[in-house]
Amino acid sequence: MLSKKHDVLLVCRKSHAEEIKRNGLRISGETDYVAHPDAATSLKKSDAELAILTVKAYDTRQAVKEIAGKCNCPILSLQNGIGNEETISEIAGSERTIGGITTHGVRYVSPGNIIHTGKGETIIGEMDNSLTRRVKKYADAMTECGIETKVSRDIRREIWRKAIVNASINPLTAVLRCKNGYLLENKHAKQLMEKLCMEATIAAKSNGIDVDETEIIKRAEEVAYLTRENYSSMLQSIIRGKKTEIDYINGEIVKAGMKKGVEMPANSFLIELIKAMENAAVAP
Amino acid sequence: MLSKKHDVLLVCRKSHAEEIKRNGLRISGETDYVAHPDAATSLKKSDAELAILTVKAYDTRQAVKEIAGKCNCPILSLQNGIGNEETISEIAGSERTIGGITTHGVRYVSPGNIIHTGKGETIIGEMDNSLTRRVKKYADAMTECGIETKVSRDIRREIWRKAIVNASINPLTAVLRCKNGYLLENKHAKQLMEKLCMEATIAAKSNGIDVDETEIIKRAEEVAYLTRENYSSMLQSIIRGKKTEIDYINGEIVKAGMKKGVEMPANSFLIELIKAMENAAVAP
Repeated sequence: MLSKKHDVLLVCRKSHAEEIKRNGLRISGETDYVAHPDAATSLKKSDAELAILTVKAYDTRQAVKEIAGKCNCPILSLQNGIGNEETISEIAGSERTIGGITTHGVRYVSPGNIIHTGKGETIIGEMDNSLTRRVKKYADAMTECGIETKVSRDIRREIWRKAIVNASINPLTAVLRCKNGYLLENKHAKQLMEKLCMEATIAAKSNGIDVDETEIIKRAEEVAYLTRENYSSMLQSIIRGKKTEIDYINGEIVKAGMKKGVEMPANSFLIELIKAMENAAVAP
Repeated sequence: MLSKKHDVLLVCRKSHAEEIKRNGLRISGETDYVAHPDAATSLKKSDAELAILTVKAYDTRQAVKEIAGKCNCPILSLQNGIGNEETISEIAGSERTIGGITTHGVRYVSPGNIIHTGKGETIIGEMDNSLTRRVKKYADAMTECGIETKVSRDIRREIWRKAIVNASINPLTAVLRCKNGYLLENKHAKQLMEKLCMEATIAAKSNGIDVDETEIIKRAEEVAYLTRENYSSMLQSIIRGKKTEIDYINGEIVKAGMKKGVEMPANSFLIELIKAMENAAVAP
């Protein structure tokens, strides 16, 4: 979408890059558009104004190392999970780090083809809660191109809120192998979702994050409802025998909680279950 | 097997009963034998010497009510889970109750056909730990017919040990949809199995049951190994969209633990997961 008004280079896998260079990136679903960004499998030295990170959390370190050596621009994380900004900061410096989340849903279909499965919101912000010209500029640029983007003066809170909601929905649907909406239909599943939320909220609060239990449970239910027909990304990973982001979602929450002496047995149990399912043989 | 030397009436579903009366009960697998017991779908008034209960734990109450009104003999439970003997005792009286377990594995294939999937041991005993002539007589009768049976003077302990092993293997394989052997192959699954064992052992001890944590974990691992190629009965129930015995296995253990103030978060979480899976739509 940004390529409407800006020079964009998409760094991605070879088959995807080749198809995008040949025929563009075909977006269907909630958005119907063929974008024509440049595409490549790696970065060259660049005077880019901004790097946007959308890789899985377990690839953050490697991606940031590549970016940091090739250009001097700020790096904006629009990823899932907790800790991405800390990794960016550690490698590229805190002044180059911008935090963010997006709740748009997208599914990769085939090289050059993606589906925009759900409209969401995008929020970015400085990690020190200041309101800078650069974040306003980036938010405006994204909004102008059709990606409505807000600036937050407490982006860490937004990242945690999204992570808690993900932590309560994704691994549960992966274990139950159900659509997100099932968490509202089945009373046992709903109770587990609430339990995970409650534990995570206590962990967040003990780390100085301003979240409210009732509000976050309501938010999780709302997200489960809005995405009721979707299979979560974590379930998709499990079905494909891929690694999940569990360490960066529930894992980081448990780590943060434990550091403050908060026991998190439900999240801890679920993490091990997901890890036991990664690469597991699916039953008959 | 008992029909080799005794008059046996098998009470079971209609199609099974009809086939058994016509062509006998064909046992394959570890045992190769065609037995010819009588069979029916309900009990008539009877002067039977012994009633052996093998129904799912959630059907105990109904089965015992039917038996209690039709005959005056002792009722021996060879079921799964905790609480069956208490239910028998409540309905038919403590003097008619005999406790027991068996670790033989059997799979129903079709009317008149079952597979003996794994050799195991059978243990029976009086609930007050006394050594009576009747339990010796029943154990001898079963052993003589090829079902090797021991008498225990602490049958409650044996029932708990089996339940703890079941509680650690069955729901875990049902959630992971894996063969029992996977619990030994995958370090995360193995860790969860041990965690469930440990919680249950504490619950058992707090209820005066003489079990040892190290010994019971070793036993669970041994059972998982011996049945490594099997899909547990609980996984089979989940796949068929049937109700499971979770309330009578992990459920009773948690109830017993909670009564003594023992928190059991892993077992509690797993119970809700299994209940969320009962009748659940299976994912793609």
